[in-house]
Amino acid sequence: MAQETHSQYFTLRRERLLAQLEARKLAGLLVTNLTNIFYLTGFRGSAGVALIGPSRSVLWVDPRYTLQAREQAQGLEVREAKGILAEEAVRWIRRKRLHRVGYEDSTLTCREFSFLKREGGRELRWVPAGGVVEDLRVVKDAEEINSIRKACQLTAEVFEEVRQEIRPGIREGDLAAEIEYRIKRKGAEGLAFDTIVCSGKRSAWPHARPSAKLLEKSNLVIVDLGAILGGYAADMTRTVYLGTPGPRVRRLYDAVRDAQEQAVAAVRAGKRACDIDRVARKVLERRKLDNYFTHSTGHGVGLEIHERPRLGRSDKTRLEDGCVITVEPGVYLEGFGGVRVEDTVLVTAGMSEVLTPAAKDIWFTS
Amino acid sequence: MAQETHSQYFTLRRERLLAQLEARKLAGLLVTNLTNIFYLTGFRGSAGVALIGPSRSVLWVDPRYTLQAREQAQGLEVREAKGILAEEAVRWIRRKRLHRVGYEDSTLTCREFSFLKREGGRELRWVPAGGVVEDLRVVKDAEEINSIRKACQLTAEVFEEVRQEIRPGIREGDLAAEIEYRIKRKGAEGLAFDTIVCSGKRSAWPHARPSAKLLEKSNLVIVDLGAILGGYAADMTRTVYLGTPGPRVRRLYDAVRDAQEQAVAAVRAGKRACDIDRVARKVLERRKLDNYFTHSTGHGVGLEIHERPRLGRSDKTRLEDGCVITVEPGVYLEGFGGVRVEDTVLVTAGMSEVLTPAAKDIWFTS
Repeated sequence: MAQETHSQYFTLRRERLLAQLEARKLAGLLVTNLTNIFYLTGFRGSAGVALIGPSRSVLWVDPRYTLQAREQAQGLEVREAKGILAEEAVRWIRRKRLHRVGYEDSTLTCREFSFLKREGGRELRWVPAGGVVEDLRVVKDAEEINSIRKACQLTAEVFEEVRQEIRPGIREGDLAAEIEYRIKRKGAEGLAFDTIVCSGKRSAWPHARPSAKLLEKSNLVIVDLGAILGGYAADMTRTVYLGTPGPRVRRLYDAVRDAQEQAVAAVRAGKRACDIDRVARKVLERRKLDNYFTHSTGHGVGLEIHERPRLGRSDKTRLEDGCVITVEPGVYLEGFGGVRVEDTVLVTAGMSEVLTPAAKDIWFTS
Repeated sequence: MAQETHSQYFTLRRERLLAQLEARKLAGLLVTNLTNIFYLTGFRGSAGVALIGPSRSVLWVDPRYTLQAREQAQGLEVREAKGILAEEAVRWIRRKRLHRVGYEDSTLTCREFSFLKREGGRELRWVPAGGVVEDLRVVKDAEEINSIRKACQLTAEVFEEVRQEIRPGIREGDLAAEIEYRIKRKGAEGLAFDTIVCSGKRSAWPHARPSAKLLEKSNLVIVDLGAILGGYAADMTRTVYLGTPGPRVRRLYDAVRDAQEQAVAAVRAGKRACDIDRVARKVLERRKLDNYFTHSTGHGVGLEIHERPRLGRSDKTRLEDGCVITVEPGVYLEGFGGVRVEDTVLVTAGMSEVLTPAAKDIWFTS
């Protein structure tokens, strides 16, 4: 993609934000959340503060990052701050006589905000505006979708490679390490989260960490993995059974897989997040397994692994083209084991497209 | 270590905190920072809220974590919350008629605090007390030192193993992936931070991420790595030169190594953090390299990779037995390359003990 086009995406994102600020009668938004700074400017350092406003937008960085910021954050002014970034930003805001400025109350700490209030003085009114940028991030643009697609592709490829190696005798932790090694060797910048490998009874704990436990014959093994590429995350889960499944395992697996596939098929522009959750829950209800489905059906994915919307009972966000979500029902039977199947799904041309197309039929006889 | 002893460490930590609360006339501290919750209770889930008070201490968790919390958090009451954790905690505080309660303003977000204020009503006075627990964490107890020692040992071992493989033709990113794979295979729970491998001119950027660049002959290669074990981090850096170093590289390397070793030798109980920084800076000043030493000399290490104190010009924290810090001067010449040498160091019996004892003389002729 040409550099010029690349920079235009960021300009467009800032324009979408400015429309939101105008509606809230804000003279600007002080952006302190680094993920949002990357989203709005392209700058990816570990420290920075930005002011996005209709007349001018500025990014403050410390001397470590001046060169990098000038290269990455195109189309807005980069200022090198010698002292505290927020202090210089507030001084600038006061000089420009902005009186109503938004701040990101959902991520800024109380102590940081006390500092802003003190520095801002009496004339500057701070308005809580946390979540404005996060709401924009729900719908991804072409550049973002491109990155997520690549991250998902890489993630699915790694799973396809390692699934041959999922056999009795391997440690959960070693399988996780192998997956992470392959994710990085394939050129990912990092992991979207610590890889989950949990087997046997431990697979009934949805948030278990990989342990020193060996995979054993007749174990269900849940593998949940995701790469980061271009700053964007992928998220995918498969469940493997080590052996020939008996009727109970088969029934569990078929139910979860059905719930997942029907929920994916229900994803389309115009549906609400809670509608998708309901589809998955209904399938499991019919099989009397809904009480063992103890989490929500999915979540948005993007610069963060968990973003809006939440595919739960109460989130009424309407899906639209450019939304990227996970669909991941699971059933967990304490003392027996669990099954979860998860794909990252894009809403495009009104319909759903699965971005993590790894096989789902994975029974091993060993 | 026996379970009983294990649980006693947490009791002692809470007692140290209670002394601090008493001095501040607080009826309790609402602990919302998960790292501090682990430090004070032993609970390691991804969600929880605790109230530490002189008459009673309580930990609220959601149903996912009830069993785990009862197992991990011994010596205090665990309550399963059906709704929002903080809401149930505040309701409890009001029922117990506590009137002056501390909150962690340095990590709590503005939005979370607005919620507390609303729920707390008028009679409950919230007092900012962020950093109280972090200050206690500066001095580690025997159980913590034990974990850090093991994490450091593992980290040094991995470096010793891979340094044979640091040769021209390998990608920076692949070397980093190899290091991380070995760290996990040796049983670490995770990485204290993303491994840094940067070579040639890129080694002059102290915060560069590993890239697809190949290591080349006559490159300086900075390798910065650290494992997490038992929740505790290790931190270590070595610089490798690929070839026979000429006088410029040798001068740089000797200067940094000297600065590092003299600073380590200066570490002892009673010295201030800034004193150690000064020792390192002086050595580099004598060699006219202090202008290229663009960061502080080190930082505390423990449950987080960066903790108090900061070994910089202005931190006057006195070191005492049980402090664990890094000592890591570096020199960075733009367009040429950089050198950094770092050890994790424990203050014990009044003196310094290096916990990451990997070789520092590593010149490769290849």
